[in-house]
Amino acid sequence: MPELRKDPVTERWVIIATDRARRPSDFVRHKAATINRQFCPFCPGNEGKTPSEVLAHRDGTGANQTGWSLRVVPNKFPVLEIHGDLNREGEGLFDKMEGIGAHEVVIESTDHDTTLADMPERQVEKVLWAFRERMLDLKRDKRLQYVLLFKNQGAAAGASLSHPHSQLIALPVVPKRVIEEVDGAKNYFDYKERCVFCDIMRQESKAAVRVVTETDRYLVIEPYAARFPFETWILPRVHQSHFEDIDAAQLENLAWVLRSTLRKLDKVLERPAYNFVVHTAPLQEPHMQHFHWHMEIMPKLTNVAGFEWGTGFYINPTPPEESAQFLREAGLG
Amino acid sequence: MPELRKDPVTERWVIIATDRARRPSDFVRHKAATINRQFCPFCPGNEGKTPSEVLAHRDGTGANQTGWSLRVVPNKFPVLEIHGDLNREGEGLFDKMEGIGAHEVVIESTDHDTTLADMPERQVEKVLWAFRERMLDLKRDKRLQYVLLFKNQGAAAGASLSHPHSQLIALPVVPKRVIEEVDGAKNYFDYKERCVFCDIMRQESKAAVRVVTETDRYLVIEPYAARFPFETWILPRVHQSHFEDIDAAQLENLAWVLRSTLRKLDKVLERPAYNFVVHTAPLQEPHMQHFHWHMEIMPKLTNVAGFEWGTGFYINPTPPEESAQFLREAGLG
Repeated sequence: MPELRKDPVTERWVIIATDRARRPSDFVRHKAATINRQFCPFCPGNEGKTPSEVLAHRDGTGANQTGWSLRVVPNKFPVLEIHGDLNREGEGLFDKMEGIGAHEVVIESTDHDTTLADMPERQVEKVLWAFRERMLDLKRDKRLQYVLLFKNQGAAAGASLSHPHSQLIALPVVPKRVIEEVDGAKNYFDYKERCVFCDIMRQESKAAVRVVTETDRYLVIEPYAARFPFETWILPRVHQSHFEDIDAAQLENLAWVLRSTLRKLDKVLERPAYNFVVHTAPLQEPHMQHFHWHMEIMPKLTNVAGFEWGTGFYINPTPPEESAQFLREAGLG
Repeated sequence: MPELRKDPVTERWVIIATDRARRPSDFVRHKAATINRQFCPFCPGNEGKTPSEVLAHRDGTGANQTGWSLRVVPNKFPVLEIHGDLNREGEGLFDKMEGIGAHEVVIESTDHDTTLADMPERQVEKVLWAFRERMLDLKRDKRLQYVLLFKNQGAAAGASLSHPHSQLIALPVVPKRVIEEVDGAKNYFDYKERCVFCDIMRQESKAAVRVVTETDRYLVIEPYAARFPFETWILPRVHQSHFEDIDAAQLENLAWVLRSTLRKLDKVLERPAYNFVVHTAPLQEPHMQHFHWHMEIMPKLTNVAGFEWGTGFYINPTPPEESAQFLREAGLG
């Protein structure tokens, strides 16, 4: 009998097909590496082909030249633009505003052919450091209400360039899904006077069936009401609502945890395309007792079809207990 | 400057790229016809390979034999099962229940190689009639709270068999996205004492920039805050909350409207893969003054990536005003 499970934060129901569970080998793989090799604006020597960098990790070299190990540049084709006014206005019963915001690219390495999973741990740490630095900088612009940090790995996951990179979009509104998640967590807090994510971690750590990895600072789990096969969450053990409040020791450990998690997924699913997204509290809000930042990694293994679009109701053919076991057995720390 | 637009019902913000709008020829086409031809359980002669039919359009022939023009059968691999009890229970802080429900397939034609767009209008009408009949029947089971009617056309849209078919999933809970849409419409109604969908139709019909087709009974539009390029909605002009309340004249006209809309999309986008979903009021609720059923058609032209998953915040590279114009200029009624 399939099972319906409810996400305790968003109250989203998910169908988990417990009977005919799909194993890693059952998925038609959307290979990560299907983007044609052509001129790459992110490769060293082509610094002039990107907009001017807003952040870089360099050993004494000048901006927009070679000699970097990581660069952050505005997206050449931004979905939002930083200059201008919001100009909120109506159009009959509709509402609109100008597309003010920021859209930046974190060029994660000089090596065109590597991936976040294959980089040295120290390089992954630089990427996470860049995320934090950019968030702290964008936070000073009071028009910006939310920063979304995400990565599309592989063409099937939406990447249009194969050079390893992640993205950051700063928005003038808090997205609906974030409001839902924050409100859901607030409802739980109002009732229990505890953070729902802290409670989930306590329960999951004890039950151990959906745990992938535990360190002193992070818990990696397959969530109870996972929407997708091998959906994986990384949660900091310490209660922290804003990703940008992460300290140096946390950053260092997160680099290890993220890299090891991606390597496990790469091993079990044969280098799948995937997306990851950092869920963090709204930028201009003070620390929240009820919200807890975390990363969500979603391998692209199934086609999302009309059912999911129409309802926000997901069908997951792989129980998270099974995917957790596959990932634990992958070893790699 | 890109534009942020808010959906007046769900309050979802969408980024519309008004500057570098993508035209139909810019999309990498996910062709509908990429499913291998092999043994087809939906073709005439293979009636024994499906579970027993629950509804059919036949000229005097017996059930589960040839001589049909449309069949509805339970899905052989259902995501939910009709027998059993819900058994709602907790698991620490989590909630679950048994996967009770129904999952049926509407086999739309005897012709393996046709599509809903290419069938005679009378056959499309039979498909819509089957939707209504099945909903009315499932409504008698008081455990079922919602029926989702949808179609995945083409492998890229999630279809695993190419024989023309649509699906119906009856759920023991009202999905979150439906609650959101109904609640959003209720908020509007409480404030204005008018149905938001009726208001949208009045405004769109007058402005005419996002209208694709109008008949006495339906309005076809590209929605103001379209999430996807060429996202297309069909709305009944008369206020009606439940799809299953549709009458014979409405059914007949909807067959024409749906077929002509799919033909326009086929012409402009060269037979794209697509999903459609019927948004209707919860099954066991009485008529609602504030909710209005409609169909949403979503061609599969772009990859949905981490950004969309993380935020429910969509980036649409084609303004609905432009897609509406392309579809109007396609002719075909």
